[in-house]
Amino acid sequence: MRIALDTMGGDNAPEETLAGALCAVEKGWLKPEEILLVGPLERIQDWLDSKGVDHHVFTFEEGGEKGEGRFPILNADQIVKMDDSPVQALRQKPRSSLRLGFESIRRGFAGAMVSAGNTGAVVAHAVTLLKSLKGVKRPGIAVTIEGEAGPFTVIDVGANIQPKPTHLLHYGVMGACLSHEAHGVAHPRVGLLNIGGEAGKGNVLAKEVQQLFSESDLNFKGNIEGQDVFLGVCDVIVTEGFVGNVLLKLSEGLSTHLLHVVEEELAKAGVTKETMKEALSAIWRRVDYSEYGGALLLGIEGVVTICHGRSERRAFSNALGLAKRATEQEIVRKITERIATTSEHSSGKEISS
Amino acid sequence: MRIALDTMGGDNAPEETLAGALCAVEKGWLKPEEILLVGPLERIQDWLDSKGVDHHVFTFEEGGEKGEGRFPILNADQIVKMDDSPVQALRQKPRSSLRLGFESIRRGFAGAMVSAGNTGAVVAHAVTLLKSLKGVKRPGIAVTIEGEAGPFTVIDVGANIQPKPTHLLHYGVMGACLSHEAHGVAHPRVGLLNIGGEAGKGNVLAKEVQQLFSESDLNFKGNIEGQDVFLGVCDVIVTEGFVGNVLLKLSEGLSTHLLHVVEEELAKAGVTKETMKEALSAIWRRVDYSEYGGALLLGIEGVVTICHGRSERRAFSNALGLAKRATEQEIVRKITERIATTSEHSSGKEISS
Repeated sequence: MRIALDTMGGDNAPEETLAGALCAVEKGWLKPEEILLVGPLERIQDWLDSKGVDHHVFTFEEGGEKGEGRFPILNADQIVKMDDSPVQALRQKPRSSLRLGFESIRRGFAGAMVSAGNTGAVVAHAVTLLKSLKGVKRPGIAVTIEGEAGPFTVIDVGANIQPKPTHLLHYGVMGACLSHEAHGVAHPRVGLLNIGGEAGKGNVLAKEVQQLFSESDLNFKGNIEGQDVFLGVCDVIVTEGFVGNVLLKLSEGLSTHLLHVVEEELAKAGVTKETMKEALSAIWRRVDYSEYGGALLLGIEGVVTICHGRSERRAFSNALGLAKRATEQEIVRKITERIATTSEHSSGKEISS
Repeated sequence: MRIALDTMGGDNAPEETLAGALCAVEKGWLKPEEILLVGPLERIQDWLDSKGVDHHVFTFEEGGEKGEGRFPILNADQIVKMDDSPVQALRQKPRSSLRLGFESIRRGFAGAMVSAGNTGAVVAHAVTLLKSLKGVKRPGIAVTIEGEAGPFTVIDVGANIQPKPTHLLHYGVMGACLSHEAHGVAHPRVGLLNIGGEAGKGNVLAKEVQQLFSESDLNFKGNIEGQDVFLGVCDVIVTEGFVGNVLLKLSEGLSTHLLHVVEEELAKAGVTKETMKEALSAIWRRVDYSEYGGALLLGIEGVVTICHGRSERRAFSNALGLAKRATEQEIVRKITERIATTSEHSSGKEISS
């Protein structure tokens, strides 16, 4: 059990990624030896030394069983930047922290990866370096958000922007599996994000996907419209990556805007600054989806957690916690089994129809 | 100058549509004779009588110049329901309030239409009964929303769910024209809703549209991501109908959810119910896009205002006000001129390239 942490991913690297690792240890979620810090050796060593934290060098050649209570560091002297093209990053930066994090999974030294790097690059590296799950053509990114009736999962929020109907069927299966395993929902209600509630609505993709979902063994609740996304109607909301990405980012921006409006109007209504501060930070915690640990890239052989580029230590520690839970819950194995059942189910349908 | 009001559109018809007409008159925005009430004659007469309001019967044969200070009523004894298929409604309900409202524009008795009916049916009737503007292949729905830095316009929010690149170019032109004429923005900043900020990002459609926008004479600011939609970065945000529809409805649902969270947390922080009520209703007014009068269907010969199905009198009066302003501002003529310039501009480009 080891989680690779891309210490150079995101806007606040490496200070906040490293602080996040410390934080996850302080919270008792992980032991230091379970977090493989991937990044520039000396910089990480200096930072850990300045905090009085033990560490040791980890290499693929020697393996990493060198000691308890110490953070292993895997040296990576290149950085994938936020505006690097995924393909160029893959070709030109073989020693990046992102690349070597995935290498550590590929070589069996880690079971999970946490990165706040450029999403396109994370997906491209994952797809290139790790195996896809049997039957899954394209991975999807699932994110769990707190809504009116507890957490719900949206998949895909940006891995696959020109998906085929079967990709979305697999996202439904994987999302339902995550909802069941990670959030304890007995029979996750799956909805397809669409522009109308009635069956048969939507664009060509949406129409075909409704058909596939109806024929599957999922607990498919039909189309779900934008206004119901946050209202607890479904546990899993399936959508194409373009729409899911807009949904996720819009939610973030609108929350920011609305809370500014709230702040202004409360001030006008005479609510004191202190009361307001207390209430607003409580609201933010409930709105911030990084409380659930960020997004999971589902459909590949490994647990991959993608954090927001702006993540700070709290978000990184949550992501490490999520990666640990997903590993312990054997999400990947369970998804593989569910996908196999779905394929059998679909092929049965094909034969009978 | 006359606006046709589909009195049977929406969940609260006809009481709230009729009350909205009265309200628009009380506010001094319109005279009674400027609002053509389209719907079941007796029901409307009874309602108006119960309020002590004058009215008279209007027919296409006799015209409607029968008197000042009285509401003209055009009898329509069929209703297009929210779940009627647009095509069937067109074929099977020739005497619907929706149909006859558009007929009154087509026959020159009205210049504008307000309806809270089924959006698909409104669009289908508009496209079938009214002429498209020269050069515009597909109309788009524009909605104006209050953001961090004042109003901004999103187009299309659901008229066209499988658009071509030129459709989106026209939406940019029409949205910019609306922003200029209706909101007084000198050089509206136009953005394309996309999943990344850099040029060249997005799906096939988004890539082609970026190219078209760059070559146009619009003040194109490039891609805009979900998190920036509400933050005042652009005055006009162009998107395909599927995404725009999700955006609009999601904003509505998320606002509802967030304000519940706000209410709960303020209660915990000890804010009194009275203070909270005052602040929350002020916040709602700022969040509610029906304050801007609803959505405009742009690209056809006539002013068509589409209201939310759940609209109440206040929203209907705002929509009537919007329809009047748009008529007075000659939005349709100005859009036609701008589209002609755009076409010349594009053909120039084609020749020179």
